[in-house]
Amino acid sequence: MTRAAVLGAGAWGTTFAAVLADAGTDVTLWGRDATAIAQVRDERRNDRALSGLELPDGLHATTDAAEALADADIVAVALPAQHVRGIVAEMTPLVPSGAVVASLMKGIELGTHERMSQVLGEAWGVGDERMTVVSGPNLAKEIASKQPTATVIAGVNPAATEFVAASTASAYFRPYTNSDVVGVELSGAYKNVIAVSVGIADGMGFGHNTTATVITRGLAEITRLGLSLGALPETFSGLAGMGDLIATCASPLSRNHTLGSAIGRGASLDEAIASTGGTAEGVKTSLSIQELARDQGVDVPICDAVVAMIHEGAPKEGVLQALVSRPRKAEGQ
Amino acid sequence: MTRAAVLGAGAWGTTFAAVLADAGTDVTLWGRDATAIAQVRDERRNDRALSGLELPDGLHATTDAAEALADADIVAVALPAQHVRGIVAEMTPLVPSGAVVASLMKGIELGTHERMSQVLGEAWGVGDERMTVVSGPNLAKEIASKQPTATVIAGVNPAATEFVAASTASAYFRPYTNSDVVGVELSGAYKNVIAVSVGIADGMGFGHNTTATVITRGLAEITRLGLSLGALPETFSGLAGMGDLIATCASPLSRNHTLGSAIGRGASLDEAIASTGGTAEGVKTSLSIQELARDQGVDVPICDAVVAMIHEGAPKEGVLQALVSRPRKAEGQ
Repeated sequence: MTRAAVLGAGAWGTTFAAVLADAGTDVTLWGRDATAIAQVRDERRNDRALSGLELPDGLHATTDAAEALADADIVAVALPAQHVRGIVAEMTPLVPSGAVVASLMKGIELGTHERMSQVLGEAWGVGDERMTVVSGPNLAKEIASKQPTATVIAGVNPAATEFVAASTASAYFRPYTNSDVVGVELSGAYKNVIAVSVGIADGMGFGHNTTATVITRGLAEITRLGLSLGALPETFSGLAGMGDLIATCASPLSRNHTLGSAIGRGASLDEAIASTGGTAEGVKTSLSIQELARDQGVDVPICDAVVAMIHEGAPKEGVLQALVSRPRKAEGQ
Repeated sequence: MTRAAVLGAGAWGTTFAAVLADAGTDVTLWGRDATAIAQVRDERRNDRALSGLELPDGLHATTDAAEALADADIVAVALPAQHVRGIVAEMTPLVPSGAVVASLMKGIELGTHERMSQVLGEAWGVGDERMTVVSGPNLAKEIASKQPTATVIAGVNPAATEFVAASTASAYFRPYTNSDVVGVELSGAYKNVIAVSVGIADGMGFGHNTTATVITRGLAEITRLGLSLGALPETFSGLAGMGDLIATCASPLSRNHTLGSAIGRGASLDEAIASTGGTAEGVKTSLSIQELARDQGVDVPICDAVVAMIHEGAPKEGVLQALVSRPRKAEGQ
């Protein structure tokens, strides 16, 4: 029987552990919050992360990383993007040398501009042939309620991506494999920034015409940066690109959308962060994407607008108006 | 001063007339409903089509097509897709020979499989150099409330598209020009079919992960058929492709979405049609798109599912499940 460890007992880590268990994989969830871990183990619930949802019987949980990682064939990681390097560093000797790693995280590290799979690979000395990335239109609470969901497992080694796919597939969870790690991972990180901008537009009272325009231009912006980094164009029109962006921007469950919406209604960044009940990755990812885009010489007006509004205190009317009312010209120019 | 006639006093025709008036164009709205036309003329409102919204002062309205079309530089047409050929036929001698025509319609004619600009061109003997198409993320009620909105004016003659753009541009309405008439027009028609399928998924209780997947695969399906007809790929990732699709699928204001949602909750087609308060173009367009796709030899599974459910009485669970739970494989294959 395949054994998996999931590191991180937030909403997505807990949900992914349930997905693995429902697919018949022997899975152990690791987290630092002893209360949450005890509740998962003893009551099959995680009220802090997934209020009101029941977890499958086969799911183990522990605060002991050595116990979780022992003999793991798959190590999935769902930790906050800007803290993952520090948290996983001390686990390096515990990661089995043949294990396939699956990054569930959506962010770009500040300073290094590294994608999460790069951070994990460096920290653990795991080569690309054992590295995979999971991304797609995957709102955790819907998956935890067993809503039918498609996802993308990206990696350069088909044996590794197929192994993760086979270990997670069930009646409600449908993984598709993809070789474009850069495109899948960049899309997952960047969409949180676009979701913040859509939230701001919603919070300011704009309607669906405006938000659809921002989402459309947002995907064009993600694609532009991705192509400069060597990603494949078809990734951006697929489930991990357009699919994830639409699900995140449509959902009132998204923390990034919620945060943007609070700012659009006039809240400060601190007040908006307090309203989300978790880490809205788009806040810091906007800064690392902006740095990365400048390195690449790529124009990212929506990301720039989010940074200006939430980090630099620019007046929201001016910045957003600039996005939706560019000078008239031929589309695409 | 530029003179424009708008034929059709439904929500979109009335709104487009207001857009022209707000852009400083001298515009006359024509419709057959004497009560609605009198209300537009005398009270600056159209309660049947745009309840509660005030129309601009400069807007004329008449039930006399000769009066509306006299000396028109632009003739915009917003009539039901399956009836337009018959309605406009008797106006042929009234259309000024130099006028630029703008199709505001989103449908494919049953039997002929013609796009609306083709139907108008044939009926009136108007060549491509005078034909334009208006499409984009353009929910009429939001535009009528002066929400900032971008749109696409497509045509093969840049002088014609620029003329329509300049005659409609205002602080809240931003037209972009595009030369890909086929792509813009097919997207506008097809998105209504996808909106029906998303409505069905919503009505059945599926969440955002599922609907984002259907929307993403829907755009792939539109693109596939469009490319086979000679459209340009970038149109589908732009405002008239992805933008319009997202706005329509997100909005509770969309009649196609409303109709699908009623069917998803168990209504019959007749009951669902009664619930929409207007023509849900996707109902008939699903049939003409399916015919067109068969002619082209293109696979259109979402369109097929909509036809099976709403026209052939197939059980919705089986058809929708087939869409979201295809066999596992590499994405894009």
